[in-house]
Amino acid sequence: MRIFVPFDPRRPKTRLGSIFDDDEREAFATAMCRDVCESIEGAGHTPELLATQAVDIDVQTTVDDRSLSTVVNDSLTSVDLPAAVIMADLPLITPATVERLLSTVGDVVLAPGMGGGTNALIVRQPDFRVDYHGGSYRKHRAQARAIDADLAQIDSFRLALDIDEPRHLVEVLLHSDGHATSWLSRNGFEGRNTGGRGTVVRTDPASSNRAE
Amino acid sequence: MRIFVPFDPRRPKTRLGSIFDDDEREAFATAMCRDVCESIEGAGHTPELLATQAVDIDVQTTVDDRSLSTVVNDSLTSVDLPAAVIMADLPLITPATVERLLSTVGDVVLAPGMGGGTNALIVRQPDFRVDYHGGSYRKHRAQARAIDADLAQIDSFRLALDIDEPRHLVEVLLHSDGHATSWLSRNGFEGRNTGGRGTVVRTDPASSNRAE
Repeated sequence: MRIFVPFDPRRPKTRLGSIFDDDEREAFATAMCRDVCESIEGAGHTPELLATQAVDIDVQTTVDDRSLSTVVNDSLTSVDLPAAVIMADLPLITPATVERLLSTVGDVVLAPGMGGGTNALIVRQPDFRVDYHGGSYRKHRAQARAIDADLAQIDSFRLALDIDEPRHLVEVLLHSDGHATSWLSRNGFEGRNTGGRGTVVRTDPASSNRAE
Repeated sequence: MRIFVPFDPRRPKTRLGSIFDDDEREAFATAMCRDVCESIEGAGHTPELLATQAVDIDVQTTVDDRSLSTVVNDSLTSVDLPAAVIMADLPLITPATVERLLSTVGDVVLAPGMGGGTNALIVRQPDFRVDYHGGSYRKHRAQARAIDADLAQIDSFRLALDIDEPRHLVEVLLHSDGHATSWLSRNGFEGRNTGGRGTVVRTDPASSNRAE
């Protein structure tokens, strides 16, 4: 199955700006993207990056700076189906997660993201088109029904958690051990329990930033 | 398998206080607990509530106001294993989620919650004890290793998302259709997309509260 991984290193993860500077945001986003690509490879498949500019990741890459939905739809309509799309900011996924996703039966398989997005999908029906702008999960669900496609949802925390807020970093430290986790450790981030949900703090004395 | 559902209606969901008053918090927590119990029943099992006070839910209930960990450990050590513990604030779970949890193999099976908690677990090894205070997932994982138990994790968004912040309500509206969803709709909550992740707003004109 063709597996596309859209990745925009230009303005990655704006909401992480409260704890990362611009270079750090890009480095962390790249580390997450590497994790996603390696999990796909670990499941025996070949990821194809759809990047908005050249990136330093050793994976087949198409550079295309049009909108996410346009680029993904062009990719989906140019290949033999089935094809999958997996977002680049899912460092919690493992080869087993990818295998579970790809083995889920359905004309359209959706992996919902926190907040109503669509973090991964499989398309086996040629009429399906993506629309990632605003509440995409609901839109994709409605569209699958409209084209009479057999719709399946995959229930996965690892696929649901796209990392784009400081509070999510604790999940990376707890549930992942790849490039993103290494990057966080190397840059002084540690998990803490301050009552209720866990958080991360930045202990690197060279930094004046502090995680939420 | 015995399935315990701990539920504290006395101080439920403090972080929802920004949008619910005290009575509403308790009513919403009770609606979520009903959803959890019905999903367990839908999977062919019998939930047993461990509640800190009498509750208006038609399920076998033990009232015990000691600490969560104490009550759960007393329950686990008083029954024949295996036994499961499923939190009451998981309205996204379905009978299929419960079946998937209960069929997961392992001496100790953990369902991580957002922020490092443990939202459900199965115990098949008599030496295992719970400790829910602060970062319980990490502690439970370490303890399972210490007692040489075969440890498994279940990767489920529906189990990972305990609802205790306003931002989580949009997930209830999107992915559930039980008592909690009905309660939200009846009380004027609607999903909105305001760019990025979805949120809920309260449209009930009788209310001066407004969701984040």
